Amino acid sequence: MSEPFRIGLLGRGTVGGAFAELLAERADAIAAITGLRPEISGVLSRSSGDFESILEDADLIVELMGGLEPAHDYVLRTIKAGRHVVTANKQLLAHHGEELWACARENDVQLRFEGAVAGVVPVIRVIQESLAGSHVERIHGIVNGTTNFILSEMARAGLSYADALAEAQRLGYAEADPTDDVTGKDAAAKMAILARLAFGTPVHIDQVPYEGIEHITAHDIDYARELGLGLKLIGTAGRVDGGLSVRVHPAFLYAGHPLASVHGPYNAVTVESPAITEITMSGPGAGGPQTATAVLGDVISAMIPPASTPETTQTLPIVEDVESAFYLSMEVADRPGVLAQVAELLGLQGASIRTLVQKGLGDNARLVMTVHPLLESRFFAALSMIGQLDYMRSPPRAIRVIEEEFV
Amino acid sequence: MSEPFRIGLLGRGTVGGAFAELLAERADAIAAITGLRPEISGVLSRSSGDFESILEDADLIVELMGGLEPAHDYVLRTIKAGRHVVTANKQLLAHHGEELWACARENDVQLRFEGAVAGVVPVIRVIQESLAGSHVERIHGIVNGTTNFILSEMARAGLSYADALAEAQRLGYAEADPTDDVTGKDAAAKMAILARLAFGTPVHIDQVPYEGIEHITAHDIDYARELGLGLKLIGTAGRVDGGLSVRVHPAFLYAGHPLASVHGPYNAVTVESPAITEITMSGPGAGGPQTATAVLGDVISAMIPPASTPETTQTLPIVEDVESAFYLSMEVADRPGVLAQVAELLGLQGASIRTLVQKGLGDNARLVMTVHPLLESRFFAALSMIGQLDYMRSPPRAIRVIEEEFV
Repeated sequence: MSEPFRIGLLGRGTVGGAFAELLAERADAIAAITGLRPEISGVLSRSSGDFESILEDADLIVELMGGLEPAHDYVLRTIKAGRHVVTANKQLLAHHGEELWACARENDVQLRFEGAVAGVVPVIRVIQESLAGSHVERIHGIVNGTTNFILSEMARAGLSYADALAEAQRLGYAEADPTDDVTGKDAAAKMAILARLAFGTPVHIDQVPYEGIEHITAHDIDYARELGLGLKLIGTAGRVDGGLSVRVHPAFLYAGHPLASVHGPYNAVTVESPAITEITMSGPGAGGPQTATAVLGDVISAMIPPASTPETTQTLPIVEDVESAFYLSMEVADRPGVLAQVAELLGLQGASIRTLVQKGLGDNARLVMTVHPLLESRFFAALSMIGQLDYMRSPPRAIRVIEEEFV
Repeated sequence: MSEPFRIGLLGRGTVGGAFAELLAERADAIAAITGLRPEISGVLSRSSGDFESILEDADLIVELMGGLEPAHDYVLRTIKAGRHVVTANKQLLAHHGEELWACARENDVQLRFEGAVAGVVPVIRVIQESLAGSHVERIHGIVNGTTNFILSEMARAGLSYADALAEAQRLGYAEADPTDDVTGKDAAAKMAILARLAFGTPVHIDQVPYEGIEHITAHDIDYARELGLGLKLIGTAGRVDGGLSVRVHPAFLYAGHPLASVHGPYNAVTVESPAITEITMSGPGAGGPQTATAVLGDVISAMIPPASTPETTQTLPIVEDVESAFYLSMEVADRPGVLAQVAELLGLQGASIRTLVQKGLGDNARLVMTVHPLLESRFFAALSMIGQLDYMRSPPRAIRVIEEEFV
């Protein structure tokens, strides 16, 4: 039986609830990795719980209350009591980061905050650790999912700003009062944090000018498309003339930019450095389970120094035969009944045709189709029989298709 | 003056040379972060150096020789001598990972290997640390830049496989003997490592079937494009019926897949998990400086436990006025001379027009242009004067454009 690791949880909203649920679900797996069994030892919500006694009972505090006070006070008291803190509170760090980080260093405790920027997209860890020794030149980020969804919908469906905002609210991607998101204020806090980390220099949110998307029209997006440009709300932090510029504003991106293909409520950050050219990370920027996953990764890192040598936690059998969708290309004699016979051989193995293109090639024809997923062994059995048909002009050719989106 | 941290370097090829250069360049910055000054204390090349004495003098060994032996022997002896190891050797880990990781755990040393998969794209650290507590369901990866370049060129320029391969060789993206890359063998080693980490279960390279791209024709790519599909060499590792399937093969991706927009010699990995949906990381998958940057990040992490509380390493001035390119949209009376006057006001401030679209709107016209980068203060000065022209039908509207690719 593993020793317990006690977590005090401040805040029981969407993310706090998701975190408590995820922790319970993953406690066994975490115990296998860390040797410690994490458990929630106390919860502070709006209506119940006492901070002092939660702190007393905890090895680590997870702060998911949001806002500046009393979160600031609680985090500071936790650090001074020598306990680790994991937080997803971007405003707290964009306003009081320097004070809190200095205090954490003095008290030799960890203060982790992956969830504060871009949810589970691991920009904080990558900038702080993977790129610790790198000379970062510039960062571009789509760090607000609400505005990226709105702009994506305006471009995709030709909606007005107001209609796209209403759609975002209906789907839960925008709050009833969307001001912080659509004005760029939320993104400015996140860019202040990213700039601080990437350039090792203090950046306060008040030093980040921001401009929102409220004035963007469907016209702008239409015209820009003619010029090969796509519109995003972009946060930029970069070196300029020996100084640093950090800003948030709408920007058109040329089609080849790594952020141009980031659509919907996703976040993405591109880090540019001479030695690496650039790396880009993307994923869902918000959402309870996503942010909770980022928080959990931080909690595990605070529990034990990150392991560079992976433990074997299980031995899974290696599966040989799996289901795949296929593309199938055949050159056949252009005669009646060919397609019917190919379809029959596929059908006997349970393969069902999804799309079909047929083109004449003089006396022959090329038949290109995709089939829905089936066990590969069955598909290849059909393929082998198709290859023996006497009107086949060359061996049929198959390539797998990854068609479904992960949900 | 910081204490020295001595690094023994095995291998002085492209990556080894780039690492030595990068380390010298970044030594000051690393000393500021870690309190230790890294230096190369010994180098083993084909023609010179003695492993035993290099090990004797080193706090950490960086293995960039490649191949199985003597790399395997040297890494094992380093670990048994209680020194940390950083390696970028995928074949070594795909064959002997279990033995080396177990030995590193027993000897309580770090064995880090970010550079072994996807160069500086931080897939190893993210899977091991950020997602340590996550239930990963599936990984899809473009983990070989040579084949991605070849397939991208076949799609973009309609080249045959042979011509695209020759182009890749000319540009240095493919070796004179490209066998390991084009057959999928290189990607199979990387997928074995990723699968091992993501699923916590032993995976040997011999358990990863692979299929290459040598048989792909430009026809396949053309036909698939009609079906809305793009072709990539994809590594897949995923849970199937309580087991694990790990494979490498060409696959068509539907256009919305996060990997569909990864072109040229880039690598990218998508990790799917129920709680997070998916995250994707992309960047240059190979190249001396890129892999050296990954190795350097690992070295720093082995020097000190990764810091969760960033040190302030400098205080950069915040720059207010920067250069930007702009999109400018105006509704004007449809009269002669309007465009000339707008262009003159822009020109007075040094703004030069890059693209222009004009469309009639009854008595009025809409003028949409983009201008090359200039100081924002000068652009806004021009904009203010343009706004005062008496044939302007509504205030002119400006949005920034991010047009240049970072090189």
